[in-house]
Amino acid sequence: MTTTQVTLVQIDNYGPWTVTPEPRREMDLQTLQSRLFADIAQFLGHRDAYAFFTRFDNMIAVTNGVDGEAHASLQESIGNRYPVSVSLGTGVAERPIDALEAANDRLQIEGSAQDRARLEVLSGDYLTDTTPADLQVAHFDVVDATGKYTDRLNEFDTYITIQLAYGSLMRHLREEHGALAFFVGGDNVIAVCPDLPERAFTAAVNHVAADVDVELQVGVGRGASAHEAGFAAKHALEDCRHDGTSVEVFGAPAVGD
Amino acid sequence: MTTTQVTLVQIDNYGPWTVTPEPRREMDLQTLQSRLFADIAQFLGHRDAYAFFTRFDNMIAVTNGVDGEAHASLQESIGNRYPVSVSLGTGVAERPIDALEAANDRLQIEGSAQDRARLEVLSGDYLTDTTPADLQVAHFDVVDATGKYTDRLNEFDTYITIQLAYGSLMRHLREEHGALAFFVGGDNVIAVCPDLPERAFTAAVNHVAADVDVELQVGVGRGASAHEAGFAAKHALEDCRHDGTSVEVFGAPAVGD
Amino acid sequence: MTTTQVTLVQIDNYGPWTVTPEPRREMDLQTLQSRLFADIAQFLGHRDAYAFFTRFDNMIAVTNGVDGEAHASLQESIGNRYPVSVSLGTGVAERPIDALEAANDRLQIEGSAQDRARLEVLSGDYLTDTTPADLQVAHFDVVDATGKYTDRLNEFDTYITIQLAYGSLMRHLREEHGALAFFVGGDNVIAVCPDLPERAFTAAVNHVAADVDVELQVGVGRGASAHEAGFAAKHALEDCRHDGTSVEVFGAPAVGD
Amino acid sequence: MTTTQVTLVQIDNYGPWTVTPEPRREMDLQTLQSRLFADIAQFLGHRDAYAFFTRFDNMIAVTNGVDGEAHASLQESIGNRYPVSVSLGTGVAERPIDALEAANDRLQIEGSAQDRARLEVLSGDYLTDTTPADLQVAHFDVVDATGKYTDRLNEFDTYITIQLAYGSLMRHLREEHGALAFFVGGDNVIAVCPDLPERAFTAAVNHVAADVDVELQVGVGRGASAHEAGFAAKHALEDCRHDGTSVEVFGAPAVGD
Repeated sequence: MTTTQVTLVQIDNYGPWTVTPEPRREMDLQTLQSRLFADIAQFLGHRDAYAFFTRFDNMIAVTNGVDGEAHASLQESIGNRYPVSVSLGTGVAERPIDALEAANDRLQIEGSAQDRARLEVLSGDYLTDTTPADLQVAHFDVVDATGKYTDRLNEFDTYITIQLAYGSLMRHLREEHGALAFFVGGDNVIAVCPDLPERAFTAAVNHVAADVDVELQVGVGRGASAHEAGFAAKHALEDCRHDGTSVEVFGAPAVGD
Repeated sequence: MTTTQVTLVQIDNYGPWTVTPEPRREMDLQTLQSRLFADIAQFLGHRDAYAFFTRFDNMIAVTNGVDGEAHASLQESIGNRYPVSVSLGTGVAERPIDALEAANDRLQIEGSAQDRARLEVLSGDYLTDTTPADLQVAHFDVVDATGKYTDRLNEFDTYITIQLAYGSLMRHLREEHGALAFFVGGDNVIAVCPDLPERAFTAAVNHVAADVDVELQVGVGRGASAHEAGFAAKHALEDCRHDGTSVEVFGAPAVGD
Repeated sequence: MTTTQVTLVQIDNYGPWTVTPEPRREMDLQTLQSRLFADIAQFLGHRDAYAFFTRFDNMIAVTNGVDGEAHASLQESIGNRYPVSVSLGTGVAERPIDALEAANDRLQIEGSAQDRARLEVLSGDYLTDTTPADLQVAHFDVVDATGKYTDRLNEFDTYITIQLAYGSLMRHLREEHGALAFFVGGDNVIAVCPDLPERAFTAAVNHVAADVDVELQVGVGRGASAHEAGFAAKHALEDCRHDGTSVEVFGAPAVGD
Repeated sequence: MTTTQVTLVQIDNYGPWTVTPEPRREMDLQTLQSRLFADIAQFLGHRDAYAFFTRFDNMIAVTNGVDGEAHASLQESIGNRYPVSVSLGTGVAERPIDALEAANDRLQIEGSAQDRARLEVLSGDYLTDTTPADLQVAHFDVVDATGKYTDRLNEFDTYITIQLAYGSLMRHLREEHGALAFFVGGDNVIAVCPDLPERAFTAAVNHVAADVDVELQVGVGRGASAHEAGFAAKHALEDCRHDGTSVEVFGAPAVGD
């Protein structure tokens, strides 16, 4: 059984700030957003957690093993270095979507994301122990994306294709399993899952192929942290690339072994 | 008539690099990608151009007014400061999609994105003059996204909704008009368009409402650079927010005036 | 008695890299160096350590409480995100200078800083326990620097004055006590010290006044980490500013109490 | 005859901000300062100007060719992305020190650096034309610094030595010639000079050798921008390294040629 700790990072009152006193230059906003995400990715990454940029003003992180003190430290450091501050809600549940729901509730109960008085909320439930089976992470990519798309189509049409595949996959995993799948650049999607059998991943790959005609492959790993599970998944995905298989589960015996 | 200059920024041989000699930590890759994008956004933004993160390993920029020397300087600076290098292809056309196609061809003709010998390609056609009507930019957002989604749903379900709206809009604008629409965070989409009448934007908003049941509003602007056109679009969008209208074209007379 | 853990961060073979194949643009080098330092400051700062930029190609950090695994993680992350790599040597001793000497030996024994084959050395002795008396940190600044210098002189002459004061102080503390003093911007100097009585700080302030005619004040703190000791020192310095005293030791009874 | 344009970048009311409401974490301040400098170095560097970190809260830049609009754009971008804002004063004169003095006056006349109401001053005199003889830049380094110091001494004692040499050189060039010399990391010092003959550089090298017993070498270049002059100086310094000479002037005939 999985136990997932999810943190919602929400920039406080960001929308109004971007147009006060008049609209700010778009490239300054893009720079601010992407550097803020990079700082959060570094901070959490060095604690073996994963952060995803999602909508940039709201980011989702998988933070098993990161305690309340570390969250406070992240929040303080951002407040010291950016013109905006962040609120952090953290929840724990078996299914990732339920952990996020709990994290989200902790912020929503304090007021609107655009409430000028609701600043730097820090509210969470944090795992005190971690075990090697806590997280299941799946790393998907597109089979031969460079050969089929990047080197042939214009980049926007490639992007449309990848976005279609991602959209199909994210909704399937959300609806069927309460898993959270994130596009992480290139042709890569990382999904944080509850306890799923290998056939569920085969089904996801088949679903996307049938739905939008894009061929995926996926490596799956387990671990006590997002990094540990995700790293095992990356290694399993290398096996897919090497062996031409479409699903590999790290540590699982190969068929016929 | 519009004249759009588009630059494709492609990280050279990035996929193989990320798994050599073994998979690199995901949060390091995320940090690298988002900081590289931030640097490009700063560099181009200060020249009144726009850069979009798209897939991060391939980024699309609208670079009217940025010459070949500036492109060379950007490429050199990235090579000096990152463990990866970039290739830059630039094209010019009336329709954004055709400019991108031309830009893309210039890289594809030199070899695969994963060709180890195809490094730091710099190839482009650059506008020598710019005029105030060169670019038409539309800035869309979701009507009351905070009230309807962010403050009510969990962040992943909000994200799914925004992604559905973005996907519907991007494909519509691409197919109907050869426009390029980019998600830029929050509930915002910026589209670089050919010469479109107001009714085309009304049709786009209606299309998304019918297709995925999300209500958009849009401000439209013109200018000699992406920033100039985009800034006018932002101001027009403020008018939508203020007046409750769904399409505002900067500088256009209000109905009944 | 103090116990100081010092880490030397040395960019591998940096000098030759900066001029290969020909000199690289100076502002790219400045950007690279200052961002690398910023990343190290963030990484170590979140572990309650202090990093100082010193010569940028060689940086000195006070790392009590940061273990070998964290050092390895820092080294890997830099290697993943920069075009240069770093070697890390760590030593422990009562006096800061002796800890640095031990750290330095660990790198020098492996070869020259410009040895092309000596890459990513990771060698250290790490404290396994920390106690609240391990570190003594002094935070100096110039009395009324803004009124006397910044608002009156041109910035270069102000800078010369601050540098003279820093030079005098750093050499005095090094020679008399084996302490390491670092300029940290503005008119601030942070010194990592062995166990020194209050009169040693009075003597240091008097030395600088007599030597270069600059009036300093200093707050002194103790702690189990650089941050803890340094934060106490900052609070003590606030007392100097408030009370007009020139030396304040955090937690020490005021004279006459 | 040289014509130097110098910009003073001053963080507004920074000292008080760093301790309000209580002292901020030192490593957050270090990160903020060094990233702010990096952004300024990138912005100005891409316009062929040079920025120097100096005291970090006050930075000095050599900005020939950068107009008022670009300065306004830099100021706006920093205000959009940092929790602090900056004031920019710019002056032009034959001697660098006089240009700085003029730049400095423009800020001081508006109020104190710690005046809470004196924010985002933008005041300057900007060169409208540039010529290839406008700037003379000298790039100094220490002869065999790695072999004599870095690989032998502990890093702090190496740093003391480099700082002594830099202090001696900066004061000599300031007092004798009104030149501005900046430590740029490693064993490198870049000096922005008025029109000086080769013997003045020989004298400077001899002065430092006699004063603090450190052997320097120097390459000298001219150009219409800091980059152009500095790049020629770097190439000349490569000649010193190659030929074992102590002063090389780019473009000057070698003795005996």
